[in-house]
Amino acid sequence: MIIIGIDPGTARVGWAVVTVEGSRIGFLSYGCITTQINESPEERLHLIHRHISALLVKHRPHSVALEDLFFATNAKTVIPVAQARGVILLASAQHHIPVVSYSPPAVKLAITGDGRADKTQVTRMVVKLLHLAKPPKPDDTADALAIALTHLYSYKLKGKYL
Amino acid sequence: MIIIGIDPGTARVGWAVVTVEGSRIGFLSYGCITTQINESPEERLHLIHRHISALLVKHRPHSVALEDLFFATNAKTVIPVAQARGVILLASAQHHIPVVSYSPPAVKLAITGDGRADKTQVTRMVVKLLHLAKPPKPDDTADALAIALTHLYSYKLKGKYL
Repeated sequence: MIIIGIDPGTARVGWAVVTVEGSRIGFLSYGCITTQINESPEERLHLIHRHISALLVKHRPHSVALEDLFFATNAKTVIPVAQARGVILLASAQHHIPVVSYSPPAVKLAITGDGRADKTQVTRMVVKLLHLAKPPKPDDTADALAIALTHLYSYKLKGKYL
Repeated sequence: MIIIGIDPGTARVGWAVVTVEGSRIGFLSYGCITTQINESPEERLHLIHRHISALLVKHRPHSVALEDLFFATNAKTVIPVAQARGVILLASAQHHIPVVSYSPPAVKLAITGDGRADKTQVTRMVVKLLHLAKPPKPDDTADALAIALTHLYSYKLKGKYL
């Protein structure tokens, strides 16, 4: 089974394709879509939508896993990030791929056992769980891997597939 | 020249197609896309994107006019509305139609001459400017008409076309 985790943003959208076979967890690839600040918001969204759609077509994941976006998270960026999240949700619906969302504390809890863990602790566990040689860069890819792994470990998935 | 004004939302997206020939302003049609609360967020966005794309293909507007979304506007709904705004921006970019945004006070000022006018005053002026028999319903369509008219009256457009 294949899961794509996505960390929405406007300048950078982290993505990660993880797999599970029996109890073996691994990853196929991960990366980061970057958009240019001098492009219009609609062109940046267009680029994000094209890249995400291409990933969905290529990997045909069982689910897309995203973080919930909270009003309190970051006042200045919440609107453009929500716009980017909108086109990612759209791409998932257009390709008939179910979307699951997790709150940031749920991701931290699933990955580290501590809902208040910091970024470094989460990245360290992602490296360990996936046997990576070094922390994935940029941070957005580590976040995307953490979100995808959260879904693999989650009861939402276990109830359905495992 | 044809302008489409759009008032983004999740349950209702108002839209209005207005025209200008010389100094004659009129409208071709207006309406409201409604989505069901029991649908998933991604399915609602999918419906909005399909409808807006169909309007853009049908009318081939010179511009899409939208209101800016402000963080302070409505804390509870800003994230889903921004997600909807994202798929509207995307549809515009996919059809190569420029997007212009106006702040809510700019719309009020353009339509009524008072940047702090209330909804009733704005609707009354929309009815008058377009010689409508009665106020357009739901409110979302009146808002979409006001946004489209704002663009027609705006210096952004005057500099380019008039």
